[in-house]
Amino acid sequence: MALAEALAELETLLGDRLDTSKGARDQHGRNETWFPFSPPDAVAYPTSTEEVSQIVKICAAHDVPITPYGTGTSLEGHAVPVRGGVSLDLMKMDRVVEVLAEDMQVRVQPGVTRVALNENLRATGLFFPVDPGANASLGGMAATRASGTTTVGYGSMRDNVAALEVVLADGRIIRTGSRAKKSSAGYDLTALMLGSEGTLGIITELTLRLHGQPEAISSAVCAFDTLEAAVETVQMTIQMGIPMARIEFVDDLTAQIFNEANGTDFPAKPHLMIEFHGSESGVAEASERFGEVVAEMGGADFQWATTTEDRNKLWKMRHGAYPATIAHRPGCMGLVTDICVPISRLAEAVAATKRDIIEAGLIGPVVGHVGDGNFHSVLLLDPEDKDEFKRAKKVAAKMAERALEMQGTVTGEHGIGMGKTGYMRDEHGAGWDVMGQIKRALDPQNILNPGKLVEQDE
Amino acid sequence: MALAEALAELETLLGDRLDTSKGARDQHGRNETWFPFSPPDAVAYPTSTEEVSQIVKICAAHDVPITPYGTGTSLEGHAVPVRGGVSLDLMKMDRVVEVLAEDMQVRVQPGVTRVALNENLRATGLFFPVDPGANASLGGMAATRASGTTTVGYGSMRDNVAALEVVLADGRIIRTGSRAKKSSAGYDLTALMLGSEGTLGIITELTLRLHGQPEAISSAVCAFDTLEAAVETVQMTIQMGIPMARIEFVDDLTAQIFNEANGTDFPAKPHLMIEFHGSESGVAEASERFGEVVAEMGGADFQWATTTEDRNKLWKMRHGAYPATIAHRPGCMGLVTDICVPISRLAEAVAATKRDIIEAGLIGPVVGHVGDGNFHSVLLLDPEDKDEFKRAKKVAAKMAERALEMQGTVTGEHGIGMGKTGYMRDEHGAGWDVMGQIKRALDPQNILNPGKLVEQDE
Repeated sequence: MALAEALAELETLLGDRLDTSKGARDQHGRNETWFPFSPPDAVAYPTSTEEVSQIVKICAAHDVPITPYGTGTSLEGHAVPVRGGVSLDLMKMDRVVEVLAEDMQVRVQPGVTRVALNENLRATGLFFPVDPGANASLGGMAATRASGTTTVGYGSMRDNVAALEVVLADGRIIRTGSRAKKSSAGYDLTALMLGSEGTLGIITELTLRLHGQPEAISSAVCAFDTLEAAVETVQMTIQMGIPMARIEFVDDLTAQIFNEANGTDFPAKPHLMIEFHGSESGVAEASERFGEVVAEMGGADFQWATTTEDRNKLWKMRHGAYPATIAHRPGCMGLVTDICVPISRLAEAVAATKRDIIEAGLIGPVVGHVGDGNFHSVLLLDPEDKDEFKRAKKVAAKMAERALEMQGTVTGEHGIGMGKTGYMRDEHGAGWDVMGQIKRALDPQNILNPGKLVEQDE
Repeated sequence: MALAEALAELETLLGDRLDTSKGARDQHGRNETWFPFSPPDAVAYPTSTEEVSQIVKICAAHDVPITPYGTGTSLEGHAVPVRGGVSLDLMKMDRVVEVLAEDMQVRVQPGVTRVALNENLRATGLFFPVDPGANASLGGMAATRASGTTTVGYGSMRDNVAALEVVLADGRIIRTGSRAKKSSAGYDLTALMLGSEGTLGIITELTLRLHGQPEAISSAVCAFDTLEAAVETVQMTIQMGIPMARIEFVDDLTAQIFNEANGTDFPAKPHLMIEFHGSESGVAEASERFGEVVAEMGGADFQWATTTEDRNKLWKMRHGAYPATIAHRPGCMGLVTDICVPISRLAEAVAATKRDIIEAGLIGPVVGHVGDGNFHSVLLLDPEDKDEFKRAKKVAAKMAERALEMQGTVTGEHGIGMGKTGYMRDEHGAGWDVMGQIKRALDPQNILNPGKLVEQDE
């Protein structure tokens, strides 16, 4: 790595949009969870695809690592520049390039956040559905193949990105996909880039699929005596083909945490939070049929949120679960787990996880996108207590092993980053070597987000 | 290539499941359309994944090409072994391995056809929706990323394959994906294999997503005065969020061809064929709202097919469009085109195509999966008339260029094979080089289906 030469050339290109100040470097060396602080040597703020390409060419010429950075909200240390070099902050590329309302698509730069996009779209009658909770950048959401509460109804980033513009490790700019709804024209490079976490290329533009704002929306929350009853309700609802826009599970401890944070008075029981989108009569029918399932499964305290205000309150509470959970144990840090199993095994997986947490003497509420079989526990840890951290890592490892035994995945939506590389061999077998082969073919110098996702030569 | 040694070793492995007879070789050298006959040196009929792996290892050791073969129904010469070697016929691997009804999934071997699968599933209340018309093998449908009439409602193979087992070019067996509904665990190798046309690996098992058999189904056909009115009806229906299971366009000539083949009496006008799936009331609502759109657009001769028998007749007619079209000009061969454009450009693309066909003095009815922006013309050609063939290729090229001008794709669902490689540079630019890089990384000897999809060293 010839860092000094690279930085000099980058400064010529970018002027004061290359920042080597301690403040900028510190900010881009931190992460949301427990990964060690590791600052870059400089932060670059490109404003165009052409500039990203030039930056990559300079870095490639001098063997300097590049780690893309969006809102910094990822949970597996994706954006931490563990080998130094340049943190490529894409948040100045934040333009909604073109709304293609007739085709229900939009072209955006990677630094547009999902909230900003939906604000921009409000008057069009369209919206972008993928909602991971955090107000993440769309580039980052694509790079980690994000999903969230609405995935059961609208799909994940895998399903809602039509095309990408990507800068490769040698500075070439490619366009993957097209504006057509489908294609059989060769290898699916769009899908390959989604979830590649900046290790194969840097996303510089996205063409996203939009959906019509639903005519009617109805949300509800209801309590169950057991988590099995709650999960079985979800299974039955899916089997019956009742179309859901969201269905979330929160455990008894999360219900308590909601009460602490929001002044609500949910019973200390497992709950489901559900939302239906559609026509007035479609939503009414779905709500009614769902109500019958809940009644059959012994659900109680059924509360419908029909006004926009009540609905917003409900989902704000759900999306605020992470900070509320952190606040539950003052001064703690969170270790967030993220497994996804076949629905038929979900109740068993959640129950076993809760047992593991209790047996390890930890505090860890469980929430889940149960319609997808995906759930998280936030393990609340004293940053000074090394043994607690060790026990938490053990619980996380047990969850991952169980997910694989059940033919699920060790990460439903948070990605690999640094946190999950240790499980990749178990999940993918020789498939992980194939990922390495693809990485070496497209980034032989290993300059794009090194230290993440694939096996690393040290 | 050390063919003799390879065949001797393959015979030891497979016994009489290695067939070098002229009959078998001829059968596996033919194709459905206009590509020249090119037989393999032998046909291998494996019965297990392990055997496929052994075959690939033998072929790799002796540098012998392997071309996977399913039902032979692909339209771009995918299964033609243009460089000889072994045709790998997977149709003896035709077991439904495991129905996972609770998770709405099924594991199948690649030689199971879609009709056979749905017969097998009938009693479960579940079905597999992807329907390209031909009774293709599911392995072949995955390898070409097939779609068809139900894609507007249920998605394509891209959306309905959860996991794959694949034998790579060196005989390694990998499992891609998992049984979880979603995952962020690294590069999406499942998506990479879907549509790779046997050039990156041989699919030996698939885990497919199933859907509940709808409680109610309703189909209809209606005529329009202009193709613009028909296409605009589709656009409005999508914009209104009316959920459709299928929506097909047939032009005036196809309506006539239907009459010739089926004794029907459709007016010689553009038609839409539509189907709704859902609950009784959901289907009734969708039908009513669609009826209102049709009325507004001046649609007429609206006929509902509510009985199963009438519905089957309707879709049998639609799926029989290809043979019926061929029969329209006795002794002809068909050159089938397949472009997909943004919906907003669809009417324009279809109208321009019809003009091109007429100006070239050709006969070519147009049908389309209009909900996806995808349409085909079958150009009916006298096999002896070289000039006609030349004019047809020119029309096809013009369609492809127009698709790209409109930011669509040169193939919505038929794939590249040999027929579309000439358009790949225009569609993908440097992205086509990336496909070549991936191909060389995973199949450095170029033994898996050589001559297809990626750029070839000659």
